[in-house]
Amino acid sequence: ALVNAAWDLQARRAGKPLWKLLVDLPPRELVAALDFSYVTDVMTPQDAVGLLEERAAGKSAREEDLLRDGFPAYTTSTGWLGYSDEKVRRLCRDAVAEGWTAFKMKVGPSLEENARRAALMREEIGPGRRLMLDANQCWDVPEAIRQVKALAGFDPYWIEEPTSPDDVLGHAAIAQAVAPVGVATGEVCQNRVVFKQLLQARALRFLQVDACRMAGVSEALVVILLAAKFGVPVCPHGGGVGLCEYVQHLSFFDAIALGVGDEGICEYVDHLHEHFLDPCVVRSARYLAPEAPGTSIAMKPESLERYEFPGGAAWRA
Amino acid sequence: ALVNAAWDLQARRAGKPLWKLLVDLPPRELVAALDFSYVTDVMTPQDAVGLLEERAAGKSAREEDLLRDGFPAYTTSTGWLGYSDEKVRRLCRDAVAEGWTAFKMKVGPSLEENARRAALMREEIGPGRRLMLDANQCWDVPEAIRQVKALAGFDPYWIEEPTSPDDVLGHAAIAQAVAPVGVATGEVCQNRVVFKQLLQARALRFLQVDACRMAGVSEALVVILLAAKFGVPVCPHGGGVGLCEYVQHLSFFDAIALGVGDEGICEYVDHLHEHFLDPCVVRSARYLAPEAPGTSIAMKPESLERYEFPGGAAWRA
Repeated sequence: ALVNAAWDLQARRAGKPLWKLLVDLPPRELVAALDFSYVTDVMTPQDAVGLLEERAAGKSAREEDLLRDGFPAYTTSTGWLGYSDEKVRRLCRDAVAEGWTAFKMKVGPSLEENARRAALMREEIGPGRRLMLDANQCWDVPEAIRQVKALAGFDPYWIEEPTSPDDVLGHAAIAQAVAPVGVATGEVCQNRVVFKQLLQARALRFLQVDACRMAGVSEALVVILLAAKFGVPVCPHGGGVGLCEYVQHLSFFDAIALGVGDEGICEYVDHLHEHFLDPCVVRSARYLAPEAPGTSIAMKPESLERYEFPGGAAWRA
Repeated sequence: ALVNAAWDLQARRAGKPLWKLLVDLPPRELVAALDFSYVTDVMTPQDAVGLLEERAAGKSAREEDLLRDGFPAYTTSTGWLGYSDEKVRRLCRDAVAEGWTAFKMKVGPSLEENARRAALMREEIGPGRRLMLDANQCWDVPEAIRQVKALAGFDPYWIEEPTSPDDVLGHAAIAQAVAPVGVATGEVCQNRVVFKQLLQARALRFLQVDACRMAGVSEALVVILLAAKFGVPVCPHGGGVGLCEYVQHLSFFDAIALGVGDEGICEYVDHLHEHFLDPCVVRSARYLAPEAPGTSIAMKPESLERYEFPGGAAWRA
């Protein structure tokens, strides 16, 4: 929280949204703000400066593109485990109508139930859109392999958190066994040391960094630099109050400063954005570039007052 | 703490020291108390029962041996970084006179200083005794390899915590580069999932489980079972107040129930044992089997009273 507050202040002081501050910082200055200890076997600060300088070619063209087109998003709002079939169908239809092309669905311990729900989602979104599966760590390694293979017929784009987030070698075994389904993980990854190993072991195909875990934006930036080195697309985790507001900045930085190809996609959950002064804006399944100075996560004073625990009106009611 | 309190109560109820309770439990009952989730790719509960049953041959002979001879210990009291050369020399001489045969020495960022102190320790303990180095995570992977290779002339037995405790692949790289010096780690290992990987990747040669980290004794037992499967000696971490009292039970269980060879050795730090009702007893560099019911870590009422924070007499003074 302190690290992120410092970045927020720095961005406000510069009068820029966070992504723009990061994009405009000279590589040497940006890298000097980051901690590369325990990852220098893969990337030294000098390597990071070199990478940023190398990718600087085309940077302003990429910025123009991103400002015009936005950054791709997928929706997690359609496939929660607690929803009835009817509700899932309705949400899928609405989302398709809004232009969404990638949909996440939660899976659980029961293969039978997972297959039934995957069939339902696939039926609603059709064969041409992406279906991502999210296991939220509910399987051991052999069970993850068994279930993902059994669900392969529904053409999943990725399998997210198939097992313990600490199990680098387990993710590598799963990744090898279930390809071409890609393994995605990272929302509760402990630190850059674990991300480094996931990349070294080719254990993940999509890297789901979070802006508020680890040591905040600073450590997330080290992880994004490592991902760029390995050519692994960054697909930030947006499943938290205000998290979409936060992580969009990481995706804009990644796409502009590092230009990592077109597989990066940012999670979107349509929930509680009304409490933010500068809520993220998603149009036709793309995040539009945030414009206000800072990190977009300041909450409305009336929301803070109403939901303050335990005295706020919402709790008293 | 709750898990360990439950084991303590169970042992007291049975009128046995913890190690004896664990040794006497039928394999099926012991294994039923443990959580194997996320490690079943390497060991299922059934595998664990099989391993314990297989090793049951010779168990009572091993128990007799251990009760007579005790379990091997090494001393960490001689080589702390803050000690003067004069003090290190004196402590080494005293420890040699007491019969110690294995000595730990802390190392830091400066190779020059590490080499100077290693020469001093080796001079005092002579060529026939063991010298262990402990880096307490102070190096990145390339620096760990560089320093351990440079210190190899002092014939270190192991290098402990050479880098981030989360870096399985880093430890594997170090282990391969510095052999025959063995890599030791585990005192702050997050959980059984990380230990599983350290074993899978042959990243450690000595496994330093702790009785009060992870999910306490229960998770430590899963790790000890995994270590036995891989043939890696368990050398518990004793560097904490009352920790020698605690971990000795794990070593006696390991040696008797699993009979894992003669490389297991338990850390001993000669510090603050006077506050315990049933302090561990070390004679001629061997832990004697604890005899009192429970886990040996009940503190004297007068110590608790005197050191209670902030009102105790020790703090008021």
